[in-house]
Amino acid sequence: MIDAFTFKLGMRRLAAGVCIVTTLDEETPHGLVATSVSSVCAEPRPSLLVCVNRSASAHDRILNAGSFCVNVLSDGDDDLADRFAAADRARRFENDRWTSLHTGAPALEASLASFDCRLTQTAVIHSHTIMIGEVLDLRLWRDDIAPLVYINGHFDRLGVGSQQTKSVA
Amino acid sequence: MIDAFTFKLGMRRLAAGVCIVTTLDEETPHGLVATSVSSVCAEPRPSLLVCVNRSASAHDRILNAGSFCVNVLSDGDDDLADRFAAADRARRFENDRWTSLHTGAPALEASLASFDCRLTQTAVIHSHTIMIGEVLDLRLWRDDIAPLVYINGHFDRLGVGSQQTKSVA
Repeated sequence: MIDAFTFKLGMRRLAAGVCIVTTLDEETPHGLVATSVSSVCAEPRPSLLVCVNRSASAHDRILNAGSFCVNVLSDGDDDLADRFAAADRARRFENDRWTSLHTGAPALEASLASFDCRLTQTAVIHSHTIMIGEVLDLRLWRDDIAPLVYINGHFDRLGVGSQQTKSVA
Repeated sequence: MIDAFTFKLGMRRLAAGVCIVTTLDEETPHGLVATSVSSVCAEPRPSLLVCVNRSASAHDRILNAGSFCVNVLSDGDDDLADRFAAADRARRFENDRWTSLHTGAPALEASLASFDCRLTQTAVIHSHTIMIGEVLDLRLWRDDIAPLVYINGHFDRLGVGSQQTKSVA
């Protein structure tokens, strides 16, 4: 077994898109920034997952609401990500264009994509809950696909002009 | 509910590090390329997950072995990723320096990190299995943290010189 510090050093090397996961619980919006979103399956019911720390303020709100929206951030959204990572929750939904889709969870109109989900399954793994959502609605808000990426403790962006066309799947 | 095609269009916008997940089953190495790896928790038992298509040849091999190794690729590893995505399985473990850590699953010495895991839990979600692994051993092979990133159907790399120092977590 390795220790938590070493594990985190290793995980800093796994690049990830940055998302804001939101929910609407008792008519109040909640949210957190997450780099632990993954596609699960496309058929027969498009599903994704997000791992949420059980100590996050939005954790129980998502469970209570039974729904959440995953908003994929663009490379200009580092300030927004910082706002959702900061302690001042009141400011999180200021200054941006939020709307709602099927579930009522805030969807960010300036994001690369908003996946509006019904929470269908959870698995508690020690400090975190893996939340699996079935995608009820989806918006592709913009055509310039320049994501905000988290790597090695900082935000980064992709190299313009270095794109290759090989495909994985 | 949205359709699978639209879901995939949305998921193309979520940037992800590219990994090769391996296992050693009945003394034979198997592997697949994956962009669905996520950290789960650091304490008390460092754990990660990977979503694997049940039709992938390595899927049942990992279940049978009860262990797997996640190797995080560098930005020069696109050919290696292509080799693991191609049909010719015999060539997958050629031409690279593979070793083994605790479980015997192949660990790539040129990767950014190798997480050697014991499979502790699975959840079948339609076409895919979420595999959760407890990290028994970990190697950080190199200091230049330049990951291979998958976005919008192609491999990409991070923008050199555009790094920012804000932190998410």
